[in-house]
Amino acid sequence: MTIKDIAELCGVGTGTVSRALNNDPRVKKETRERILSVVKKHNFIPNSSARNLKLMDTNTVGLLCMGINNPFFQSMFHPMESELEKLGYSAFFMEVGVDEDEGEAALKLIHEKNIKGIIFLGGMMKDPDVVLRHVTVPYILCSVGIDMSSTPDCIAISVDDEKESEKAVSYLIKEGHERIAIIAGRKDDKAVGALRLSGYKKALEKHGIKYDPKLVFHMEDGIPDFSAENGYKTMKKVIKKCPDITAVFAISDVTALGAYKAIYEAGLRIPEDISVVGFDGIEYSKYLHPPLTTMVQPTDEMIHEATENIDLAIKGEGKAKMIYVGAKLVKRDSVKKERENGTKVKHTS
Amino acid sequence: MTIKDIAELCGVGTGTVSRALNNDPRVKKETRERILSVVKKHNFIPNSSARNLKLMDTNTVGLLCMGINNPFFQSMFHPMESELEKLGYSAFFMEVGVDEDEGEAALKLIHEKNIKGIIFLGGMMKDPDVVLRHVTVPYILCSVGIDMSSTPDCIAISVDDEKESEKAVSYLIKEGHERIAIIAGRKDDKAVGALRLSGYKKALEKHGIKYDPKLVFHMEDGIPDFSAENGYKTMKKVIKKCPDITAVFAISDVTALGAYKAIYEAGLRIPEDISVVGFDGIEYSKYLHPPLTTMVQPTDEMIHEATENIDLAIKGEGKAKMIYVGAKLVKRDSVKKERENGTKVKHTS
Repeated sequence: MTIKDIAELCGVGTGTVSRALNNDPRVKKETRERILSVVKKHNFIPNSSARNLKLMDTNTVGLLCMGINNPFFQSMFHPMESELEKLGYSAFFMEVGVDEDEGEAALKLIHEKNIKGIIFLGGMMKDPDVVLRHVTVPYILCSVGIDMSSTPDCIAISVDDEKESEKAVSYLIKEGHERIAIIAGRKDDKAVGALRLSGYKKALEKHGIKYDPKLVFHMEDGIPDFSAENGYKTMKKVIKKCPDITAVFAISDVTALGAYKAIYEAGLRIPEDISVVGFDGIEYSKYLHPPLTTMVQPTDEMIHEATENIDLAIKGEGKAKMIYVGAKLVKRDSVKKERENGTKVKHTS
Repeated sequence: MTIKDIAELCGVGTGTVSRALNNDPRVKKETRERILSVVKKHNFIPNSSARNLKLMDTNTVGLLCMGINNPFFQSMFHPMESELEKLGYSAFFMEVGVDEDEGEAALKLIHEKNIKGIIFLGGMMKDPDVVLRHVTVPYILCSVGIDMSSTPDCIAISVDDEKESEKAVSYLIKEGHERIAIIAGRKDDKAVGALRLSGYKKALEKHGIKYDPKLVFHMEDGIPDFSAENGYKTMKKVIKKCPDITAVFAISDVTALGAYKAIYEAGLRIPEDISVVGFDGIEYSKYLHPPLTTMVQPTDEMIHEATENIDLAIKGEGKAKMIYVGAKLVKRDSVKKERENGTKVKHTS
C-alpha cells in the first residue's frame, strides 16, 4: 500500500494525501476526513515510517546506555543514532540503571528480534567477562569504565584517562599550583576513577611534587558517584581538612559543579581562592560561574569510531582492539595563575 | 532450563552455579569454567533475566521521550521504569529528537511486538491529532506541550503552566519587582511557552502592573529552544534593550542557567542587580551560584499518575481527562527583595 494507492482510492492527488496527513489547512475538512478514514481502514503507514520499520526489523543496533544521568553520555545518544542511520542501521535505545545488571540488559536486547550488534555506552562494568560472556552478537565498548586488570578481548573506544588526567593536573602545576586536591572516584573504583587518580599521581611525580595521600578525597558511598551531590559533599570535606590547597581536580564536570557550591558556601572564591579543573567537557561546563576549565572528551570522534566499528564488526571485519581518542584541555576562567610559585597561598574570604 | 538443571549437569550445588555466574572468587577457576561452558551450551538465562524477558514479551509499555536533552525529563526516565515494573510492566524506552516525528516513533513502538501502551514524555507536540491518530494502543501524555486550541480526547498529566507561572511572577512582584522581563518560548510556541507567558501577564494584571510587550523576549529560532544557549543569547538581548529591569522570569531552569552567564558577563550580579526565577526544579538548579529560586514540578507525582493511569487505560478502565499536579515555588538565593517598592533600581556593576 503506497501513498499513490491511497490517493487513487480517495480520488485525489498524492500531494493532497500528504498534506492531509500533515494536517495542512489547505485541505478541506471533509476531504481530510475522507482521506484519514481510508488511511485508517488500510492501516497505511507513511513512507518514511515504513522505511524505519523495515530497518527496525532487519538491521538494528542496540544502544545500551549505562550513564543516563550524566549529561556527557546524554549528549551522545542522538548523534549516535543519526550516525547509525547513515550506515543503514536503526538504533534501539535501552538504559541500564546504576543498580542494574548490564548483562541482563544485553540479553534483553539480544532477544529482541534481529538485534545485529550492541554499543555499550558509558558507565562502569564491574565484571566485564561475566557480562560480556552472554553477548552473542558483535559489540563495542564506548567510554565504558572497566577494571583494567581484566581485559576482555573486544573493541573498546575511550580517551586515555590516565594520560589526559596527567595533562590536566600538569596544567595546574605549570600555573604554579602545588597543593592540589583530587576528588577521585569511589575507593573501590578500579576503572575510570583509578585511571584518573593514577594520572594525578604521575603529574605530581613528573614535576617533582611529593604525592600526599591526604589530598586524595574519594567520592562517598551511599550517594551516586560522579554526581553533583557527591562532588558537593566531598568538596566540603576537602575544604575542612585541607584549607591550604590552592586547586582541586574534580574527575568529572558534574562533580565539579557540586564542588563549586561547596566552595561558594565556604565563602571562598573561584579561582582567587581555589582553582578548579574538571573532566568531560559537558555543555553546561561553559555556563558555570566562572566557566569551568576542563578536559574535553571528543564525543564526535567517539561516536564516529563506535558506529564505524560496530558496522565493521557486524560485517565480520571487526578485530579486538583498544581505540584511544585524544581529549583537549579547554582553558576557561576557573584556574588562577599562582605567581608565588611553590609557596602556600592563604585563603581570604 | 533452570539453575537446578545446570547444577545437576555440572555436579555442583545451585549456590555454586549462582556464584560462578556472579564471578565469585570462592569458586575455583576450573569449576567456574566448567559451569560456564554448560551455561553457554544450553543457552541458559539466569532467573531474573528470564523473568524480564517474559515481561518484555508480554507486558511492555513504551516510554516515548521527546525532551531527551532536558535534565527535567531525563530525571524521570528511570523512576518511571521502576514504577512500571512494580505494576508488572516492562518499560521500552525510545527517544524522539527535536527534528523527528512523534507519530512515526509511536508507530515504531506499536509495531514492536506486544507494546501494550505508550507514555509520551515531554517535548512539544505540534499536531497532536495527526500524531495521535496513528496510536492504536492506550496512551498517556505526561508533561507534553500541546497546542491548547486543539484538545485531543486523551489522558494528559501536567502542571497548570499558566497558574504556576502566575504564582512565580507574583512572588517577584510581592518582593517589590515591577520591571520584570520574561524569557518566553519561541514566537510560534502555542503550548508550554504560550501558557507560561499568559501566566506572566495574569500576574502583572492581578497586581495592577501595566503589561509592557517590550519586556517579553522570545527564545530565538535556529538554536534549540529551552536550551542554555538560547537562554544566554536571549538574556544578552534583555540586558541590552532593557537595562532598567530588576528581575527576569526564565520559563525553564536550563534557560535560566544560560541567563546567569549573560548576566555575569555583563558585569552584573545575581540577585543584587537582577533577580532570577526559573521553572522546572531540575537537580542542577540548587548547584547554581546563587542557587536558583524556581517553580519545582512534582516529578514523583507525575510519574505516579502516568504509570497508574496507563495501567488503568491498558485494562480498559481509562477515561480521557486532564490531570493537573501542583508545582511548588522553592525559594533560594536568586531573588532580592526590592525595598524601594515601585521605584526603578539602577544597576551598579
